[in-house]
Amino acid sequence: MAQSQDRFPIPTLAAMPEDIRTRILGVQEKAGFVPNVFMTLAQRPEEFRAFFAYHDTLMEKDTGLTKAEREMIVVATSAVNQCLYCVIAHGAVLRIRAKKPLLADQIAVNYRKADITARQRAMLDFAVKVTTESHRIGEPDFAVLAEHELSNDEIWDIAAISAFFGMSNRIANVTNILPNDEFYLMGRLPKA
Amino acid sequence: MAQSQDRFPIPTLAAMPEDIRTRILGVQEKAGFVPNVFMTLAQRPEEFRAFFAYHDTLMEKDTGLTKAEREMIVVATSAVNQCLYCVIAHGAVLRIRAKKPLLADQIAVNYRKADITARQRAMLDFAVKVTTESHRIGEPDFAVLAEHELSNDEIWDIAAISAFFGMSNRIANVTNILPNDEFYLMGRLPKA
Amino acid sequence: MAQSQDRFPIPTLAAMPEDIRTRILGVQEKAGFVPNVFMTLAQRPEEFRAFFAYHDTLMEKDTGLTKAEREMIVVATSAVNQCLYCVIAHGAVLRIRAKKPLLADQIAVNYRKADITARQRAMLDFAVKVTTESHRIGEPDFAVLAEHELSNDEIWDIAAISAFFGMSNRIANVTNILPNDEFYLMGRLPKA
Amino acid sequence: MAQSQDRFPIPTLAAMPEDIRTRILGVQEKAGFVPNVFMTLAQRPEEFRAFFAYHDTLMEKDTGLTKAEREMIVVATSAVNQCLYCVIAHGAVLRIRAKKPLLADQIAVNYRKADITARQRAMLDFAVKVTTESHRIGEPDFAVLAEHELSNDEIWDIAAISAFFGMSNRIANVTNILPNDEFYLMGRLPKA
Amino acid sequence: MAQSQDRFPIPTLAAMPEDIRTRILGVQEKAGFVPNVFMTLAQRPEEFRAFFAYHDTLMEKDTGLTKAEREMIVVATSAVNQCLYCVIAHGAVLRIRAKKPLLADQIAVNYRKADITARQRAMLDFAVKVTTESHRIGEPDFAVLAEHELSNDEIWDIAAISAFFGMSNRIANVTNILPNDEFYLMGRLPKA
Amino acid sequence: MAQSQDRFPIPTLAAMPEDIRTRILGVQEKAGFVPNVFMTLAQRPEEFRAFFAYHDTLMEKDTGLTKAEREMIVVATSAVNQCLYCVIAHGAVLRIRAKKPLLADQIAVNYRKADITARQRAMLDFAVKVTTESHRIGEPDFAVLAEHELSNDEIWDIAAISAFFGMSNRIANVTNILPNDEFYLMGRLPKA
Repeated sequence: MAQSQDRFPIPTLAAMPEDIRTRILGVQEKAGFVPNVFMTLAQRPEEFRAFFAYHDTLMEKDTGLTKAEREMIVVATSAVNQCLYCVIAHGAVLRIRAKKPLLADQIAVNYRKADITARQRAMLDFAVKVTTESHRIGEPDFAVLAEHELSNDEIWDIAAISAFFGMSNRIANVTNILPNDEFYLMGRLPKA
Repeated sequence: MAQSQDRFPIPTLAAMPEDIRTRILGVQEKAGFVPNVFMTLAQRPEEFRAFFAYHDTLMEKDTGLTKAEREMIVVATSAVNQCLYCVIAHGAVLRIRAKKPLLADQIAVNYRKADITARQRAMLDFAVKVTTESHRIGEPDFAVLAEHELSNDEIWDIAAISAFFGMSNRIANVTNILPNDEFYLMGRLPKA
Repeated sequence: MAQSQDRFPIPTLAAMPEDIRTRILGVQEKAGFVPNVFMTLAQRPEEFRAFFAYHDTLMEKDTGLTKAEREMIVVATSAVNQCLYCVIAHGAVLRIRAKKPLLADQIAVNYRKADITARQRAMLDFAVKVTTESHRIGEPDFAVLAEHELSNDEIWDIAAISAFFGMSNRIANVTNILPNDEFYLMGRLPKA
Repeated sequence: MAQSQDRFPIPTLAAMPEDIRTRILGVQEKAGFVPNVFMTLAQRPEEFRAFFAYHDTLMEKDTGLTKAEREMIVVATSAVNQCLYCVIAHGAVLRIRAKKPLLADQIAVNYRKADITARQRAMLDFAVKVTTESHRIGEPDFAVLAEHELSNDEIWDIAAISAFFGMSNRIANVTNILPNDEFYLMGRLPKA
Repeated sequence: MAQSQDRFPIPTLAAMPEDIRTRILGVQEKAGFVPNVFMTLAQRPEEFRAFFAYHDTLMEKDTGLTKAEREMIVVATSAVNQCLYCVIAHGAVLRIRAKKPLLADQIAVNYRKADITARQRAMLDFAVKVTTESHRIGEPDFAVLAEHELSNDEIWDIAAISAFFGMSNRIANVTNILPNDEFYLMGRLPKA
Repeated sequence: MAQSQDRFPIPTLAAMPEDIRTRILGVQEKAGFVPNVFMTLAQRPEEFRAFFAYHDTLMEKDTGLTKAEREMIVVATSAVNQCLYCVIAHGAVLRIRAKKPLLADQIAVNYRKADITARQRAMLDFAVKVTTESHRIGEPDFAVLAEHELSNDEIWDIAAISAFFGMSNRIANVTNILPNDEFYLMGRLPKA
């Protein structure tokens, strides 16, 4: 498949609006590289800004679901949508946030076999149903979540994260955003 | 099913942040009512802002696909996802923008039978593939779009609109946002 | 797609057998127009007669399910089969029979969100299962229907209506019967 | 599963309307037994009459598709719908009409492996598509049929037979009509 | 479709390794003919040996599930995979082992309608789930099997037979192994 | 889910037949650990022997497909079947055999985005079709493989590997064989 830069050419840093260039340089400083999703989306500054504003409010929240749980949802639902970028990039983040080097691969292949709690299993069952047949979601689903003491606020988060990354998966699949090589190994080794 | 206001209580206008209240009052003045999606999302101001920023940049663009074509994509893909809110609300907008009172119902039930051009048919075939199996999209799909002279910029728009409303469909299905009664009849009658 | 009249040419009224012409003229007098399904099926008089005899015995019955409920089944199952003719034409009849102008659109998009009773929801769940996987129907399904006090006679009706319109949907989809323009607006406005 | 006679009690011959009793006795005289579909449908005389009128006009026609080909369509599509009654009963008729004792089993399991002509393969591909996704049928399908010199009249027959038995399959699955034992062996042995 | 002997040429008996020729001659003596699966697999002696070693240990066991029940599993799962060879050949063996001439056809078309015990129904439900979605199998499935007093050893057998014939089905479908004519009638008639 | 050792208890090395113990000790010496599939299958010595005989003849062949290509097939098809054990264990082997540390993850998530040749893409398209719908495989599929100069012998290998691991996936999913921790990191780092 043609690389995304052929069909959707990536702008130079110099050509980007100030706020976008600043965000990208910040990420680069922190991570040591620029994740490809930033470069591809930078072609369209308004979409870039809305995308990352949405992303940040869902993924950086400090209450309710843990940050590791939020990443579990991303990995499980992105695997359903077969989005290479999101599974690899967020798998890396999940390994780091959960401090569990094996967890992301387990969730990506079959979360039903993963080393997670019953509550997390219910969370991922719901996330996958939102991903594949949200039109069938109803009271019996909410009853299961309530049994596991997932609050309405957490339910919204599960649904919104699944939905947001369902969008991200489709954009990455079509524009052919591929994961940076760095992601594959991140979080697999103990810190020296 | 429980109405969304039970599980996810809608704030009063007075309790909303200034910018959100202003946007809602603006919509009310223009449309004569406040579409329910605004009230439900207003519970979470940051998500509200990101959602509508994303929405506006994709749907209000004046180049490439027409505004009616953008609404066709919303209706066709929301029908696949069985999102009552989006099919009814954007069906209304489509009728108005296309000035064709029958088109939205045709696209919602089976766009392959709708009164559209071959180019629009290719556009909707692609949008539905993005919706149902974006992981299989590849060069043969782009070749078909090129035959119908859809540019790379238009392809991005088709994909992004399908993806964005795929997100919107899932959130509306889970939070149970229902269409306002007003939408059902909008655009069906000639203006007096 | 080629219009049905190209591939399957519609006979003139004069060329039709007496009984069929009489039925068609009767419908025209009552409705103000001749629904396209009559014209297309008139090519084959014996099929026409069997089709409408079957239709009438299932849809015009005065006991058990109401006539509006019978139309709900038609709309819900025809939506699954993506039959434009049946969803639009029977959606119109449903609006009129139920005296609810919004109901048909709700059922066509996602009957789980429609403004119906729990008993009607069970009825439509069963109708859709007959439509999509009748080979799996068994005692647990009948137990649910019994809980909602649906009698065996009503169960037969639900199954037979779903099955009959499943046939009708396939014939309409292949022969490309399209809904008359008149249907789209019927039953949406209060009678003057 | 409860036998159909428990939920849907079969009337005595004496209690049936004259025309239905006569038809059943005629079938019994010819076949040596009464196929169960007659007894179950006799509960509802008007449906019985419409069903068999429709059946006869589609299956007893002497032009176009051969009678054996019509039965091939029934067996292939009833296998998709997993209707035990129709696969076994019409499998028997197919063996007799085609004078090929192995053909029905081949078509029931996987018609792509059956001993049929390329034209018959195209006929069954179309019949199965009518059965599973009639909403996607369009010009490319008709072009394939034209290559195999299937006329528009034959195309209507393929579609109508697939659609009619799709109805029959659903009714038999729900009312639990089971094949008479006699059908299983019919046509498997050379006539003495 | 090309016969398997065109693409995958069948060796002569003389050209086969001694042990394989001996096994084939033994089968021929016992059955009166050589089932085609032996001839096709004989092209690859090591696969032949492993295949039949696996087959025999799963199908010839004298404890736990009966031999007829093992064949039921083969027929039900091979029908799901639409493998003509396995449904016909093992349908014959099932008729003989169960001494029920109608059972194989019932299980092949829709095992939910077959004349089997509740325990056998649970066995086949599980076998079909192993065939279609083994990744979802979990404690609730095992609980149902335990209710029917299926032991862990029997559960392994059900899973392994389903899995082994899932392999066999795929190989037969690709190499186009077709059933010998003799299988179709075996076990249908009372022994003279 | 219960660990496999609860439902299907793993024998001690001392209790195993000599040949199986020898093989396991050999693997341990070479790999440094005993992959769990060996321990679980050792409960049933005859199945163990047939399984590994089959495995070795398909996976250790020196002609035709490379050993890395054989592992690609395992990873791609095991991902479709969501078998955690096979994706992780054979992913490790693939990384080592292909000397490409990123390849296994790419193939597991979406092989259409993986860094492989067009010939390997055709190989995996075929392997996945064998996995999901082998009953539809026919001449058009073989024609595509021939375009990529895949021989009949290689086609058999692709089919047999896909089919064998389809069996393995189902057994591992049901008996809950989980990957050893060692596999997750193997082949990801350059040799010191």
